Order: sequence, then structure tokens, then C-alpha cells
Amino acid sequence: MAPIATSPTPTPTPLPPTAVKDKKAAARKRFEAVYAVVRDDLLDDFRKHNMPEEAIEYYRRSMDYNVPGGKLNRGLSVVDTVAILKGRELTETEYFKAAVLGWSVEWMQAYFLVSDDIMDSSITRRGQPCWYRMEGVGFMAVNDALILEGAIFQMIRKHFRKESYYVDIIDLLHEVSYQTEMGQLVDLITAPEDSVDLSKFSLARHSTIVIYKTALYSFYLPVALALLLCGFPVEKRNESDPDYYKIALDILVPLGEYFQIQDDYLDYSGTPEQIGKIGTDIVDNKCSWCINTALAHANPEQRAILDASYGRKDPAAEERVKEIFRQVGVDNEYAEYEAQSYARINTLIAAVPEVRSPNGDAVLRRAVFSTFLEKIYKRTK
Amino acid sequence: MAPIATSPTPTPTPLPPTAVKDKKAAARKRFEAVYAVVRDDLLDDFRKHNMPEEAIEYYRRSMDYNVPGGKLNRGLSVVDTVAILKGRELTETEYFKAAVLGWSVEWMQAYFLVSDDIMDSSITRRGQPCWYRMEGVGFMAVNDALILEGAIFQMIRKHFRKESYYVDIIDLLHEVSYQTEMGQLVDLITAPEDSVDLSKFSLARHSTIVIYKTALYSFYLPVALALLLCGFPVEKRNESDPDYYKIALDILVPLGEYFQIQDDYLDYSGTPEQIGKIGTDIVDNKCSWCINTALAHANPEQRAILDASYGRKDPAAEERVKEIFRQVGVDNEYAEYEAQSYARINTLIAAVPEVRSPNGDAVLRRAVFSTFLEKIYKRTK
Repeated sequence: MAPIATSPTPTPTPLPPTAVKDKKAAARKRFEAVYAVVRDDLLDDFRKHNMPEEAIEYYRRSMDYNVPGGKLNRGLSVVDTVAILKGRELTETEYFKAAVLGWSVEWMQAYFLVSDDIMDSSITRRGQPCWYRMEGVGFMAVNDALILEGAIFQMIRKHFRKESYYVDIIDLLHEVSYQTEMGQLVDLITAPEDSVDLSKFSLARHSTIVIYKTALYSFYLPVALALLLCGFPVEKRNESDPDYYKIALDILVPLGEYFQIQDDYLDYSGTPEQIGKIGTDIVDNKCSWCINTALAHANPEQRAILDASYGRKDPAAEERVKEIFRQVGVDNEYAEYEAQSYARINTLIAAVPEVRSPNGDAVLRRAVFSTFLEKIYKRTK
Repeated sequence: MAPIATSPTPTPTPLPPTAVKDKKAAARKRFEAVYAVVRDDLLDDFRKHNMPEEAIEYYRRSMDYNVPGGKLNRGLSVVDTVAILKGRELTETEYFKAAVLGWSVEWMQAYFLVSDDIMDSSITRRGQPCWYRMEGVGFMAVNDALILEGAIFQMIRKHFRKESYYVDIIDLLHEVSYQTEMGQLVDLITAPEDSVDLSKFSLARHSTIVIYKTALYSFYLPVALALLLCGFPVEKRNESDPDYYKIALDILVPLGEYFQIQDDYLDYSGTPEQIGKIGTDIVDNKCSWCINTALAHANPEQRAILDASYGRKDPAAEERVKEIFRQVGVDNEYAEYEAQSYARINTLIAAVPEVRSPNGDAVLRRAVFSTFLEKIYKRTK
């Protein structure tokens, strides 16, 4: 018989690609069903407050347009992480609670995107017009962003108010959203679209922006929420207890940074067929990893060209910047960064103590982190 | 000797006007000193996160510009209410905590105003350019509003995390800010500045907007925060306990509505010398109490004039609207509303049970509410 059947390897037989796709689609569908419940709860709440029907309809439209249309990676990763921590299939109730936490992250993402698009005067988002550009919306989008944010605490209160870790969820959400807004502030003052000043850029500044603006809410937050749901306490109970949240933070921050650097690199190097869009970081004066790496290696002549050409809405200027990127070896730097980063994160993961939660119901497994890493490593889109 | 010295009246001798003014100025100064502490804590926190100096400076500028420059009525009313509830001078610690809660309301006010000004394309606020119109700000103001909001939970966490009512403060702040955003949504869809449709207006719609957008955060929130600080529990401990928060809500919502209706009426009837600004509700298509009252009483001819003239940037059209206001007797209606409202709120206040808080440290006094009412009654600015 085929050796696969009798193989002693503990790795489960990989599913054929179509089965993987089906499984992913089913997971997404199940998760989306919870979206509808949460949204309808929020609309019911508006109704209980006797809001006019027109306001309820507007709110439904705002949520449907802004919350569920993305890849849902952040939200799904809460559910996936809870399943890994528990090491078993979740009960219906467990799944639902994990999914509500997942959706709270997606709602957060939604209010960040709605406000970022206003601030960046963006045109499209997820292949459709940005919300603030929709008929009958305009600057009402600012209030819509605030409502999307407020909704997070409504859904958390409804489903977690009685849990001992309720206050920890709230504190975590506040902490991470505040940090994300800090990151957005630094990004905006470092790289305003209409005023190019590369002297403000540096790899250190890039790192601050990426960690605060992206890594914390995209990578740390979903895992930290899963840890709370599984009963991992925020405060140590014994001196010898590991600090579960610090362990997660110390891995997920570099992992999130690696993810964003990939994103920056793909914006420059990826073909539109690969990444599904045309990279615009150079013409948009983005504080990207590529320009910061180039700045770190450029000689005075190259630097002068970068100063004169970065952030201009001019294809010839963009081409000159790309030429400097090639000259200083941004591609090599990236390959080196990726290899080092992958090795470093793997080392961190290997050191995770696989301890059981105090309530005995879950184990802090390395797979939580390696799953993230393997999804990201050498991705080309 | 003068009869004043031997008067048996329990009312304290009224201070001469200059002394009242001095006392108010001193109260404001003491309150403002706490602003500086809270602001510096927030900046220190940015520093601890290694935010660049430029971001810290920007944040300081944003807070100083947007938070402390108003009348501070909402914030000061938290402090005043705590003193009334305790029936004595506050200790330094008590004062500080009450003031932090007061500032949390002022921070909330700040993020509402920063976002409202963007949404309304306003030009000035408190006699200076709106924040989003300042050099180097622009649409970054959207993120600044989010940061001002996030700061509320930072200051509350720092000073109240260990209190048993911490979670109640958080829930209250979320609830009230969400409701305020609901009110803003209804206001925006009812009265967009660029599309006049008086068929959307009604006194009922006006009431919804006013209660949600203004009354809850301006009147209920400060008192509810003071009740929490004084140990009045949110959940009843005995069936026979009064619902302190419902009592407060049931008085402060009509009181806040009365306040806003005064505001609306003064915008139409007050002279610039009186109200310190030129009323623009009519030309701005505001869903004001005056237009809704006029609509309720207008005959078809008058209605046609209102439909054709309201919300136009045209002094002649504005004059035609004012003429209809006079014809249908908006002034009489207001006098009647004011008298009825004053009587009704007084009746509610008289029914407040003056009970002691379970911890014995405070009494739910009628003076909490009558102080508000007397400040507002028959005000002309």
C-alpha cells in the first residue's frame, strides 16, 4: 500500500487543495453567520431606543458595507487560536463567544479603515468606493466610525458582562485601539501625502509606526482575546507563573512587523497579477520599509535622487526611485531580513512554555504562533 | 445692627456679585489644575511608549487646543454634584478623583466637537478656528478625535482601576457616548445642511435628537459619574432600594431638553449682544425647536413659505422664516413651554427621596437637581 497510510509521522495527512479551499470557505461562512447575529442585536438595540427607521436602515448599511467585506483574517484568527489553545473542537457556545471576540476585532478594523480613508482621501477600498465617498454619507462617515467603535463595547457587554475577565477584555481593547491611534498619528506626521521630507524617515521610525499602527491590533489583539476567553489570567497568581500575555506580545510584535515589511516589499516588487493591485507607496510618500532601507544605504548622489523623486505623482520619478532601490540592493536586504526574521521568530516560538491554563481547560501551545508564521512566510500576495 | 446678621433664615447669606465671580474663578482655576496633571500623565504615557518628540508635541497641542477652552460646565458639575451629595467640603483626594471624572466628560465633549466641526464644515469654535482648520492638522483631526476619546479610558484606568465601581464607570461612559453618537446620526440624516426637507422634521424627532445628542452626556452623565464616585450602586441591593440612576435620568433628561430648547429659542430670539454670537439655525437648516413648533402650527400658506425659505443662505429668506415664527406665535409657545417645563421638573425634584448611600457617605439630595435647574431657568445667554 501507499506509504502515506502507514506513515508514522504525527502530521495529519494534508488535505487536497480543493478540500482546503472548501474547509476555509465553510469556516468563513460559519463565522459570517455570527456577524448577522451581532449586527441584528445592534439594530434591535437602536430600535429599543426608538431610533427612526431611517437611522436604523442607515446603520445597517454602514455595518454591511464596512465590517464583513475583508479577508476576515483577524477575526478568524481569534476563533482558530481558541481552538488550538483548547486542543479540540469548540462547543456551539464556545464558538459563538470566540466569534463575537473575533468580530470585535473586525469592527475595530472597520472603524480604522473608515477613518483612515477619510484622512488619506482614498478613493477605493476592497475594490469599491470608500464609505465616505458613498451617496448620502460624506463626512457623516466620521460619526459612523465612532458608532462602529462604540458598537464593539455594546457587543462585548452583551455577551461577556458576567465573565470575570470582562474588565480585562475592555482594558485590552482600549489599550490596543489607543496604541493603534498613536501609530496612526506618528505615520501621519512622518509621511503626510502632500509634503515630502525624507529626513523624518528612518528604519526606527518605520518600526514604531508598524508596531503601533498594525502589529498590535492585527496580531497581538486576536491572540490576547483568545487567551482571555480560555482563562489565562492577566495578573500572575504565583511568582513562577509565566506571563502569558508578554510571551504572546514578544512573538506577535516581530511577527506583525515581518508581515508589514512583506507588505511594503510586495508593494514595490510584486506584479499587479501577484498582489491584486498596483503598488503606490512610492508615489504616495509612504514611510515604507523599502525607502527606509534605501535611505540607510544610499550614497549622497542616490540620496539626492530619492529626495527629489520620492512621493511625486510622476511615473518617471517613481522609476528613478525604483532604480535606486535596485542599486542599493533592497531585494537582497529583504531576502536577508526575511531569513533572519523567520529564524528569530522560530527561536522565540520554540521557547514558549506549553503550560496549561489555571482552569485546566487550555494549553498555551506553540502551534498558536507557528500557524501564524507559516501562513505568512514567503507569501507572495 | 443690620437684620442680616440675626436673620433666622436657613439660606446662607448671598455673596455680593463680585465675590460670586471670584469664587467661580477660583473653582475653575482649581479644576484646571487637574487638567494639567491629567494631560501630563497622558503625554508621559506617550513618552513611555517611545513616541517621537514631534508626536508628543502634536498631542499636547491637540489637547490644549480642544479640551480646556470651553465653559467647563459639564466637568465642574461633576465636582459640584459630588460636594452636594457628600454635603461637605471634599478632601484633596476626593476632589482630585471627582475632577478626573469631570475632565473625562470634558474630553468627551472635546472629541464630539472636533468631529462635529469636521462633519458640519464649521469655521470657528469658541471664537477660534476649528481644530481641523489649523495649520498642519486637516483630516488628521479625525484621528485626533479618536485619541481624545481613547484618552478618557486611559485616565479612568489610571485613577479608578482598583475601585469596585471601575467597570460601572466604563459601562456608563460607553453607553452615553454611544447614545450621543446615535443622536448625532439622527440629527445628520434629519437635517443635512445641503438638502432641506422639512417633512423629516417634527417635535418628536427634535426631542429624540436633543435627548440623545445633548441631554444624556451634558446633564445625566456628570451626575451619574458623581453618584458612582459616592458609592451609589448601579444594581439594587434590596427590592425596596430606590433606583438612583433612574431617578437622576428621569429628571436630567427633561432638564437637558429644556436647556437645549432654550438654546434653540435664544438662537432665534437673542440679540448678538445677549448670546455672544449671531444665530444661524435658520440658514443652516437646523432641526431646531422653533422650526418644529412653527411647523406644528403653520397653515398651508405659511408652510409653503417655510419650505421655500428654511435653510437658505439668504437673509431675505431668513427674515421670511422669522416672520412666520412671529405669526404662529413661537414666542408665546416658548413662554408656555418654559413655564410648564419648569413646573414639571420642580415636581420631579420635589419627589426625589433624600436617601443615604449604602456606604453611608452621601445623600441623594434634591439640591443636586435644583442647582442645575436654577442655573438654567430664564437664562438669557
